Amino acid sequence: MTRWRLTVEYDGGPFVGWQRQENGPSVQGALEDAIKGFSGEDVQVAGAGRTDSGVHALAQVAHFDLDREVDADTVRDAVNFHLKPRPVAVLEVQAAAHDFHARFSAIERTYHYRIVNRRAPLALETGRAWQVPVPLDAGAMNEAAQVLVGNHDFTSFRATQCQADSPVKTLDEIAVARDGEIITLDVRARSFLHNQVRIITGTLRLVGEGKWDRDDVALTLAACDRAAAGPTASPHGLYLAAVRY
Amino acid sequence: MTRWRLTVEYDGGPFVGWQRQENGPSVQGALEDAIKGFSGEDVQVAGAGRTDSGVHALAQVAHFDLDREVDADTVRDAVNFHLKPRPVAVLEVQAAAHDFHARFSAIERTYHYRIVNRRAPLALETGRAWQVPVPLDAGAMNEAAQVLVGNHDFTSFRATQCQADSPVKTLDEIAVARDGEIITLDVRARSFLHNQVRIITGTLRLVGEGKWDRDDVALTLAACDRAAAGPTASPHGLYLAAVRY
Repeated sequence: MTRWRLTVEYDGGPFVGWQRQENGPSVQGALEDAIKGFSGEDVQVAGAGRTDSGVHALAQVAHFDLDREVDADTVRDAVNFHLKPRPVAVLEVQAAAHDFHARFSAIERTYHYRIVNRRAPLALETGRAWQVPVPLDAGAMNEAAQVLVGNHDFTSFRATQCQADSPVKTLDEIAVARDGEIITLDVRARSFLHNQVRIITGTLRLVGEGKWDRDDVALTLAACDRAAAGPTASPHGLYLAAVRY
Repeated sequence: MTRWRLTVEYDGGPFVGWQRQENGPSVQGALEDAIKGFSGEDVQVAGAGRTDSGVHALAQVAHFDLDREVDADTVRDAVNFHLKPRPVAVLEVQAAAHDFHARFSAIERTYHYRIVNRRAPLALETGRAWQVPVPLDAGAMNEAAQVLVGNHDFTSFRATQCQADSPVKTLDEIAVARDGEIITLDVRARSFLHNQVRIITGTLRLVGEGKWDRDDVALTLAACDRAAAGPTASPHGLYLAAVRY
């Protein structure tokens, strides 16, 4: 038996999310079906981040165990062949230690959020970014975002249905930057709460619009109340960008 | 009557091309229909570049005449409203001189070509880039590309069905660069022949693979024979990026 570690890219649009669910196609299910398609084996695929419906991955990391003896290139090409035409691609495959776990061995996750800040709707990036029609001050967003760095109770920035044991997390880095009409947020932490990056983004939008300032973000954090934060930003702008072990 | 100049972004995937045709939906037709939808007027929209089916635009420029008196922001928002759900977006609208012509007044066009150079299929950029699975040497491609700069007979790099009067064109600049798995080509000229950028890209791929070198590209150019050049690259990687007046 070999434990295989995969790096996976996907468009989250047509999926109910990473996790296998009763109500529609999942990325995990697509991978498990494709692996069964080439190997005949029923496997369980575990992923580093359980992305929501519409959320993408540039480099999700996953693992599964296979009895059959094959080489890494064969696993990659065969799984990619059986994934078609679903928008999921295995970028890299490597044999991992038997105690490697895509979720529990991860020590850092990086999420990327993409805003297209313009009046016109999206033609080329439909479903791939969050279009915000009102002008945003990315510098002010970046400054206010720094309030969130460090170890905090992030109850205000957590979906009410979040199942994590504790709302206390350490945010290692958050950077907001503008390049033309594109505003990007890059957020790095050991782990995240449900919807944390999207609620942070929705809150920083208020700062970008000039409705809120850095102090409002600090008060929101201190409130430990989801109702104190801004709305949840669109899933379409969010990408699981990297996982470190 | 006002002559309006539009800057337009589109996903060329679902269209038969820029130009109105009998055999399916065109970008020109989508714009003309949307303009009629808000103004009731039958207009003709002229574009700077007649992109083929599958070819995208970041900033196509077009113009049309409208009798009705409206302001530029209204034109932009109303046309965008009526374009939905088609993947075409008007980024900018401005009133133009009565002798402005999107196609004939243009003095320079820039095309951008995007290659994803990796073994794995595309999940996030399906239809938005050309996936080339074999490793390409972008430095060699860039060096060989310089052979094409200047005033030449580009018969070898022109679709056999090209309707231009003359195959002689001046290529002002071509740059090939790599950033991770992405290889970009940026090509600038007053005007282009039919499929010129895609045949150039398909030919430079041969150089990138090490099958051809700079001298082969020079011989291809001198041959003045379409059969001497490489295959036509996918339309999905091509973007009309800018038009200068």
